[in-house]
This record gives sequence, structure tokens and C-alpha cells, in this order.
Amino acid sequence: MKQLTELHAMVSKAVDELTFPAYPTDLYEPISYILSLGGKRLRPALLLMACDLFGGDVEKAIEPALAIEVFHNFTLMHDDIMDKAPLRRGKITVHEKWNANVAILSGDAMMVEANKFMMKVDDAILRRVMDVFNETATGVCEGQQIDMSFEQRNNVLIDEYLDMIRLKTAVLLGGTLKIGAIIGGATSTDAQLLYSFGVNLGIAFQLQDDILDVYGDPEKFGKQVGGDILSNKKTYLLIKALELANGDDANMLDHWLSVEQFNATEKVAAVTGVYDRLDIRNYAEDAMQTYADAAFNALDQIDLSEDRRQYLRQFADNLLVREY
Amino acid sequence: MKQLTELHAMVSKAVDELTFPAYPTDLYEPISYILSLGGKRLRPALLLMACDLFGGDVEKAIEPALAIEVFHNFTLMHDDIMDKAPLRRGKITVHEKWNANVAILSGDAMMVEANKFMMKVDDAILRRVMDVFNETATGVCEGQQIDMSFEQRNNVLIDEYLDMIRLKTAVLLGGTLKIGAIIGGATSTDAQLLYSFGVNLGIAFQLQDDILDVYGDPEKFGKQVGGDILSNKKTYLLIKALELANGDDANMLDHWLSVEQFNATEKVAAVTGVYDRLDIRNYAEDAMQTYADAAFNALDQIDLSEDRRQYLRQFADNLLVREY
Repeated sequence: MKQLTELHAMVSKAVDELTFPAYPTDLYEPISYILSLGGKRLRPALLLMACDLFGGDVEKAIEPALAIEVFHNFTLMHDDIMDKAPLRRGKITVHEKWNANVAILSGDAMMVEANKFMMKVDDAILRRVMDVFNETATGVCEGQQIDMSFEQRNNVLIDEYLDMIRLKTAVLLGGTLKIGAIIGGATSTDAQLLYSFGVNLGIAFQLQDDILDVYGDPEKFGKQVGGDILSNKKTYLLIKALELANGDDANMLDHWLSVEQFNATEKVAAVTGVYDRLDIRNYAEDAMQTYADAAFNALDQIDLSEDRRQYLRQFADNLLVREY
Repeated sequence: MKQLTELHAMVSKAVDELTFPAYPTDLYEPISYILSLGGKRLRPALLLMACDLFGGDVEKAIEPALAIEVFHNFTLMHDDIMDKAPLRRGKITVHEKWNANVAILSGDAMMVEANKFMMKVDDAILRRVMDVFNETATGVCEGQQIDMSFEQRNNVLIDEYLDMIRLKTAVLLGGTLKIGAIIGGATSTDAQLLYSFGVNLGIAFQLQDDILDVYGDPEKFGKQVGGDILSNKKTYLLIKALELANGDDANMLDHWLSVEQFNATEKVAAVTGVYDRLDIRNYAEDAMQTYADAAFNALDQIDLSEDRRQYLRQFADNLLVREY
């Protein structure tokens, strides 16, 4: 079993060494640019890990791992246009550095490049891998559309929210692990269990992210506390609070969601106060635990030696408790 | 050999019967909408024709033909955003009817759907088909980027222009025919020759389009004469004229390219006058003939019975002379 740090270094090197044609400049430069911004590159490393887990040759998983990284960055490039985001990983976004047309078209070209990299798998598993990849891509598009539609709605249900984060972020983690497993020679059953592990872990991770935004240690978390509150982002916490709040608490939430001029500290304190009174943190942690349990349950069913299972369990534990 | 009209009816029915998931509404409704706008649907019919040409089962080519139609409409959806086009086939464009974000994301989802349809080919030809499809998609993205970059330039060379139309429009025709041929059981050599036939025919067709804009019979052509001239579009004619013009003609072109307020009839007449003095129509027709000859030359080398070759020759003849 290779260590994740080693796999991470392999895949980071491969991303850094990627080159694209010089012409047309405005099609390919933005691709190199967004890939150079770094990011954690956790997903491609996990694809190698999944392959290694079943005794596969990780060299054969590098191009598919690049496919996942290129695909993920394609979705970021298009998401940034839609969100009118000025910055990505602290650097100017493609649609700001060039323009929206360049970002649309370079994103399209990235998706084709991602497909080409994924096609490098052996013939024997080509269809299985591409089917997972295409289903994953559909899920990510659906999740992004649902997320955008939430901005116009104040009656989002918890189940709708959970479905959205499953599609928007968790299926990519699940799909990444499943593709790695298939390349590594896993049985269909084990590949599907690893998918389930990844999807449930991804949902738990996103719920943790929602909790950390309000209750995280800002130094460990690395983000401004209450960023989601300030932007009225429909997180698990806000949706649950809107569901449970009555009387003064409901009025207070309505007020802070609609007021356009405010003192940031005051808004974060007031909304957090509502959350505290409604015990929202506990609800969110329970939900997170439910998905974590489902992930570990899937993991327990995979046909793996105990040390490999332990390795994955530890990876998941680290992911889920690191930032409080 | 099935008639093109019959194949066209088959594929049009298949397009009309396409359904997509109901949810998320704003992801899938725009896909159904743009596909319902019609268009000639010539490309998917040609994919069936190419399959039939080599004795293949056209039923097996229907889903790949849908892939081509969905892919083509994905590029139109994104191109319309980039061009800020209000109308497509006389109907309101997706980014105007919904908004640009919806058009970006629905376009992305369409590309995934196109890939899924193309994946329906048999395992034995899956990689060959997908490789052609991906190369085609890359070409179309490159062509669109080069076309956009031309808007900012006044020194475009004829060879750059020919390369642009090859990528932006001709490789899709070539790729469509090649995929149909592979499905139909053609040898690699014959599939490649049919690709060459399609690409060269596509370039000839685009050059004809450039000529018809200025010299076509408006009743047969179905478009306003001089539309390209009015929008300063860099066509073969304009690029060649800019290359050849001296003295008064050069000044006149510069004037009409830069003036923002003008009488349309006057501008079309003046620019056409320059074209006439420089014999631009002949240059363009010679170029068109060169590509038509290359197409027929490729056709002559394909291992086909004489009646099938004649059928394709007639198809190409019809495409290239219909609208004067």
C-alpha cells in the first residue's frame, strides 16, 4: 500500500507537467492557467489510492486521475462565470482575466480533454469507466443547476439540500474512487461499495463544511467564520433553522435574510444565536454522523485485508475531524 | 441503398422522440427546446447514410446520429451566448429565453448526453468511434476560438481562414461521416477517405456560403444579400479583397469597415463593387472548386460499387450548386 502523500506527489507532478497546444492561445492558455492555481488535488490522488487499494498498477491510473482533475477544473471554470466570482484560490478567475466567452469555450475544451484522458484506460474496462465518468458528469451538472435554483427559493427542504450536495460534490468523489477501483481490478460489487463509501463521505464532508463555517476554529478552518451566514447561503444549518424557527426566531431570520445593509459581526452573532437556541448544530452533526456511518458501513463490506480497510477508515476519520 | 430522405425522416423522428429527465427543469428543458427548433438535421442523416453506404445496419447508427445532433446543438447553445445572438432558427435563443447561466450549464449537460449516446456503439468499435468524436469536438472548439479571435484582427490570412472553417464546420461533417462509416463496417482506409471527402466538402460548402452571401439569388438563398458585408464578417471574400486591394479600393474597404452609421444598400453596393473590380468572386470559386475536387478525389479512392459512389457524388453536387 502506497501512502497518500506519495500518490499525491505523483499526481501533482503529472498535473504540473501537463501541456496543451500553443494555438489557439486563448483556448489553451486558460486551461494551463486554472490547473496551475493548485488546489488540493485530493481527488486525483484518491483515484490512485483506490486503484492501489485493489492491487492495481497506479501508473495506469495517472491519466484517468488527470481526467478527474481536468474535469473538476472545467466545472470550476464554468461555475466561476455563473457565480461571477472574481477570485479562485486567491487568483483572478479565467472569465475576469480573459472574458466570459473565453471561459465558456476553454471550459468546453477542458471537458473534451478530460474525456480523452479518461479514454486512456484499457479496452477491457473502457465502457465501465466511461459510463461511471459520464454519470458523474451528469450528476455534477444537475447538482449545480439545483444549487443555482436554490438561490431563488426560500422553501428548500432538507432532503432537497442533501440531494443537491450529493450531486454537486459527493458523486464526483464517489465516481473518482469507483473509477480507481475498476482500474485496480476490483469486482463490480467492491467498486460499487467504494462508490457508496465515497458518496456518503462526500455528503458528510460537505455537512461538516456547513458546520465549520459557523462553529469552526477560524485559525484551523482557514476561512472567515460566518461567511455562509453573511451571503445567505442555503446550508444545512440555515435550511434546518428556517424549518424549525417560530415567533421571534423566525422573524429574526427573515430580517437578517432580507436586510441589505448590515454590520457583519452583528449579523453573524444574531443568526448564530438563532441556531444555538434551535440546537441546529446538533441536528447538523447528527446528519453528518448518519452519512459518516453509511460510509463506514459500505467500507466494512468491501472485500479488503484489515490493514487496507484501516487505512481507508483513517483517511475518512482525518477528513471528518480535522478542522474543529 | 436507402434514400437520404428516408434516412432523414428516421433520424428526425428519433430527435423528435428524445426525452430528458423532468428535473432539474432548467437543466433539461433548454435541451428539449433547442432540439425542437428543428434545423436541417442533415448531419445525423449523413451519419446514417455513411453507415448504409458500407452495408451497415442503420438502426445501430441512430443513437450515434443523435449524439452528433445533440453535440451540434450544444455548440450552437454556447455559440449563441458568445455571439449574443437573440434568435436561433427564428426563435428566441436559450440564453435570452432563460439566461446565460442556464445556457452554459444546459450546454455542458448536452455535451455529456452526446457522449452517452455515442457510447452506445458496439464494444468492438467503441474506442475508434470515441476517438473520432473527441478529436472532432476539439476541432470545433478550436475553430470557434479562432473565429472569435478574427473579430479583433484585420490581418487575417487566407490560410488562417481556411484552417478556421475546416475546424469550425468541416471537421464535424467529416467526423460524422467517418463515424457512420466505422459503424457500417468500413475499413480504416475507407473511413478515413470518407472523412477526407466530408472535410473537403465542408470547406467547399462554407466557401459557397461566403459567395452566396454576396452573389446568391436572395429568393433561392433565403437570406438577406450582403449580410456578411453589413456585419464586417471576415469571409473568404473580404480577406482576399483586403489582401489584394490597393489605392482607392483599399481606402474604400477601410472606410466601410470602420464607419458605424451607414445606409445598408449603399455599403453592400460599394463593397461588392470593390469585390467585382478585384475579381474576388473568381478567386473564391477557384478555392471552392479546389476543395470540391479534393472531396471528389477522396471519393474516387473509396472502395465502393459505382452506383454508391454515384449516389455520393450526386449528393455532393446537390450540396454545392443548389442556391445560385
